[in-house]
Amino acid sequence: MRAEIISIGDELLIGQVINTNAAKIGEMLNLAGIKVVQVSTIADDKLSIINSFNAAREKADLVLITGGLGPTKDDITKNTLCEYFKTKLVLNQEMLENVKAIFAKRNIVLSEVNKKQAEVPENCIAIKNNNGTAPGMWFEVDGKIFVSMPGVPFETIAMMENFVIPKLKAEHDLPFIYHKTILTQGKGESDLAALIEDWEDSLAAKNIKLAYLPSPGMVRLRLSAYGENHAQIIKNVEDKITEVLPTISKYVYGFEEFGKPVPKIESILGNLLLSKNKKIALAESCTGGYISHLLTTVAGSSAWFNGSIVPYHNQFKNELLNVNNKIFSTAGAVSEECVKEMAEGVLKKFNSDYAIAVSGIAGPSGGTEEKPVGTVWIAWSSTKETKTRKFIFGHNRERNIHLTAINALNGLRRMIEDEGF
Amino acid sequence: MRAEIISIGDELLIGQVINTNAAKIGEMLNLAGIKVVQVSTIADDKLSIINSFNAAREKADLVLITGGLGPTKDDITKNTLCEYFKTKLVLNQEMLENVKAIFAKRNIVLSEVNKKQAEVPENCIAIKNNNGTAPGMWFEVDGKIFVSMPGVPFETIAMMENFVIPKLKAEHDLPFIYHKTILTQGKGESDLAALIEDWEDSLAAKNIKLAYLPSPGMVRLRLSAYGENHAQIIKNVEDKITEVLPTISKYVYGFEEFGKPVPKIESILGNLLLSKNKKIALAESCTGGYISHLLTTVAGSSAWFNGSIVPYHNQFKNELLNVNNKIFSTAGAVSEECVKEMAEGVLKKFNSDYAIAVSGIAGPSGGTEEKPVGTVWIAWSSTKETKTRKFIFGHNRERNIHLTAINALNGLRRMIEDEGF
Repeated sequence: MRAEIISIGDELLIGQVINTNAAKIGEMLNLAGIKVVQVSTIADDKLSIINSFNAAREKADLVLITGGLGPTKDDITKNTLCEYFKTKLVLNQEMLENVKAIFAKRNIVLSEVNKKQAEVPENCIAIKNNNGTAPGMWFEVDGKIFVSMPGVPFETIAMMENFVIPKLKAEHDLPFIYHKTILTQGKGESDLAALIEDWEDSLAAKNIKLAYLPSPGMVRLRLSAYGENHAQIIKNVEDKITEVLPTISKYVYGFEEFGKPVPKIESILGNLLLSKNKKIALAESCTGGYISHLLTTVAGSSAWFNGSIVPYHNQFKNELLNVNNKIFSTAGAVSEECVKEMAEGVLKKFNSDYAIAVSGIAGPSGGTEEKPVGTVWIAWSSTKETKTRKFIFGHNRERNIHLTAINALNGLRRMIEDEGF
Repeated sequence: MRAEIISIGDELLIGQVINTNAAKIGEMLNLAGIKVVQVSTIADDKLSIINSFNAAREKADLVLITGGLGPTKDDITKNTLCEYFKTKLVLNQEMLENVKAIFAKRNIVLSEVNKKQAEVPENCIAIKNNNGTAPGMWFEVDGKIFVSMPGVPFETIAMMENFVIPKLKAEHDLPFIYHKTILTQGKGESDLAALIEDWEDSLAAKNIKLAYLPSPGMVRLRLSAYGENHAQIIKNVEDKITEVLPTISKYVYGFEEFGKPVPKIESILGNLLLSKNKKIALAESCTGGYISHLLTTVAGSSAWFNGSIVPYHNQFKNELLNVNNKIFSTAGAVSEECVKEMAEGVLKKFNSDYAIAVSGIAGPSGGTEEKPVGTVWIAWSSTKETKTRKFIFGHNRERNIHLTAINALNGLRRMIEDEGF
């Protein structure tokens, strides 16, 4: 099955919004065994939309359309779909209930404009939007499938996951694809590639493709294989993973399973704490709350996260965490001594089993010759010991904050699993 | 002048790489007065490339192509361009010097494969790549311009800035375009549209286009106008903004200026605090450090951010912020009483001028009939007063955290600017 994605919206053409939706949809289709042949981004303009529909049906069996479904005047996709499929809008009772429920929950009066959100073309299957008022629409005409979805990524992706992909899988014989991804932290892409070069060369004989997916501080290694014999394909991939693990085990923090979301380091750490019935607390200086934020995005984190203190000035490192004031005038706030006392202080304050403390120069200013921007000290404390490590990252503030967090979290995972540093 | 952007690369179609290049090129063209009519993302495949060239020349005067110019076998753009324009590759001496210089700088021996990078089609103008080995290529055939550029964003954007945009401006009479965007928070897209309906209808008479750009918790309103008379166009847009402001002033937190990055609410609040020489502290329960994180992404935030406490359990709300334990057994942790004491407690603890406290049920579990998932209380304290407000958001944990943060930050901005709630 061949697919084209059509993204509708002037804001995409003038670069005000980056088209992340198309990338995510492309990934989901690819994982389901559907080949994406083109992504077309076009204006909120009737003629452009109709021309792109005509061009897409020449190339693809499946056309996924996003955007232009809002209640405002610049959103014209729904009326254009009606014109294209020679049909008319009708009120869909189920969709109206959804719109009503959303407005009731938000305590807002439902206006006539918003009621119109529940109108869909007569010949389509309406798709309930669990996260917004604009329904999706599924058309099948002359053997071609057209699916129109809202453009808000949060709404689009949920609709793809809950409805579009399952329906495509149920109704079409898609080829078997198996992916498994090794999650690594602590080694750059090219260094990792050099480590596993011979193993990588051996993959071709088993028809396995390897992709390096780098993101700041991490590299994901995705193995993919296609074919008919499901059991054999899975075995080939698993065998190859078993083969490479001894070489890179120091850097591996988890695996991403076929069709499941990427496990995040914060969830992996959370599960580990939960399984051991341990609690964590944090003292964050240069990361300003980011590590706590990552941990508390995990549902149920209150079972293992006690809390944190963000002391953004030395005065508060002293007052709230009992860091000795002498340290600031001798070693400075960005030092092994300081993070050690911060970690031990916050461990006590929150009566926890483990604590992380970070202090560094996130930048862009504040660096010195001795401690350049990107210098970060991290301490990990348990009730038995405190370990520390110095990192030197780069110049970019946001990236430094992120890299500090990733290393802090994986460092604690390694401490708990007693893997050494 | 109408343009189409063609992005070539399998990695874009399967979502392994997000197409940021097209967004940036679109923005640059738009700012230069060139209308982007389509972005087509296609595979590294000869037939797809030729078909997309043919389709693009029907719609556009200018076709900007990125990707597929690397030295490896899967990069076929250059040979396909030769075939399409019925020409052959010739070695370009200036481009060869560039390739040689780059290899010399990196201390790498120049291979035959890499020398080929300096070959370009005979009928094109070669464009020197200041950041890499693959030259750009400029073709003019039958009144249509085709420009092929490398796909590495860093290389593409420099080539656009240094060569493509200046040459287009020098050789073509491009219209003037003016955009200005009103940043709003606190009112949904459709409610906002209802408020400004009459005003929106009046824009057409001035040839101004309005776009609604919603993101969670916020809506940006972009006004755009094109034409010859620069001063008149700017005046028309500014007059219309002045006209609508009284209607929506409660929701406006800033403006995005022509060609500049979007100001974030956290930066706007930070600048406001800085200008008044005031300091802020936070007590974050359900947001788990996210608001502090947003504030500390702003460079220089230590000038106005003192710190925060994330007390993720009642015990620590009591111990660290002096919230009266009775509140937990009567009103509960998600209550007006609790956030009021949290805000006043953290204000004192960090000796600050302003404080924000939040407590809520982020979800997905933990809701009750009386306090469903998404219920959030926010308190804003100054040294003079404390204000509180209850919000009911949705079911999604991450979204609830984000919406709480956005509302908390804009609420404090409103308190400081004394705009009322």
